[in-house]
Amino acid sequence: MKYTSKILQEVIEAFGNLPGIGRKSALRIALSLANKGETRILQFSEVLKNMAANLKSCKICHAYSDDEICDICSNSSRNQSLICIVESIRDLMAIEETQQYNGVYHVLNGLISPVDGIGPDQLNIHSLLGRIKAQAVEELIMAIRPSIEGDTTIYYLNKQLDQFSIKISILARGISFGSELEYADEFTLGRSLAERIPYNLQVK
Amino acid sequence: MKYTSKILQEVIEAFGNLPGIGRKSALRIALSLANKGETRILQFSEVLKNMAANLKSCKICHAYSDDEICDICSNSSRNQSLICIVESIRDLMAIEETQQYNGVYHVLNGLISPVDGIGPDQLNIHSLLGRIKAQAVEELIMAIRPSIEGDTTIYYLNKQLDQFSIKISILARGISFGSELEYADEFTLGRSLAERIPYNLQVK
Repeated sequence: MKYTSKILQEVIEAFGNLPGIGRKSALRIALSLANKGETRILQFSEVLKNMAANLKSCKICHAYSDDEICDICSNSSRNQSLICIVESIRDLMAIEETQQYNGVYHVLNGLISPVDGIGPDQLNIHSLLGRIKAQAVEELIMAIRPSIEGDTTIYYLNKQLDQFSIKISILARGISFGSELEYADEFTLGRSLAERIPYNLQVK
Repeated sequence: MKYTSKILQEVIEAFGNLPGIGRKSALRIALSLANKGETRILQFSEVLKNMAANLKSCKICHAYSDDEICDICSNSSRNQSLICIVESIRDLMAIEETQQYNGVYHVLNGLISPVDGIGPDQLNIHSLLGRIKAQAVEELIMAIRPSIEGDTTIYYLNKQLDQFSIKISILARGISFGSELEYADEFTLGRSLAERIPYNLQVK
């Protein structure tokens, strides 16, 4: 595609390199931004500049944070002895959205995946063990997606945590709300049958 | 959705306000950008800052340009007496991509639409008439999409241009390459039958 403006072309390329934005979308975004005028574009630029300069990684849980320690880790009304281990900050946000969790987190920043060359050392596991040694932790919840990488990571963490007497749990697996039984995979359906729960025990 | 970082939240909101980017995509983009590190984020910020400061609108055709006059209007190898009138710079780019056009453009920046309160005065029509008065123009191509607004705009322009003896053409209408006859609307199919072309006249 040819452009009349190199400046515009640079903007289109910058947006086109972001995940989920194709060439046509990048063009549409760049033109819509150009239409918004100088002030709005500068605001956008400043928001990104601020991110580059000031966004930090929490020294305790590794979530993105405005301060050295994030709002969750520094919140005394949250249960600091309950740690939820997640793959990414997106999973952290998904759990926060449920408003069902009052503990703290630990972001691994990935899962063990020998195929992709990702071993335990590339993940935030060392700092997790450090946290457990330094403070009283009662329970660890492995909120990690069911998959080969997820199960490998849980298995590895479990081995490492053997030396501590901490309760370790994983997320319940079963049929999702709104899903059709006929389309559920055999493994999930089988497991949800085997681990069926008494009717009066169900949450809400 | 709750965030651990206000800085990140601002970035998510900035992306979420762009066309075609929903909340989930904005989150994905913001996190992917955060992962890219300070240098890459600053680069993105600078590209936008440059756009805010230096992107111009060509004084002749109103396309976005790096200079006062765009590359097309200042290109002496292009036919300056053939003007293609387009609704937007996106249409200009689509035509440039065909590599079939060697004239210049005039970007109206919209179409006449009484329903949306857009009259001729909000469009770049005054400057078009100025161009025609100031220089020798042989032909005007109305490369405007077939629609109520498009036809209204073409009708209005045609009236305004009556005073000049300039050839005015519109884009050929007919069956698109690769489309199924059974799904074509009756209007298009009827018109393409009535205005059928001799076989040996067809382009390539």
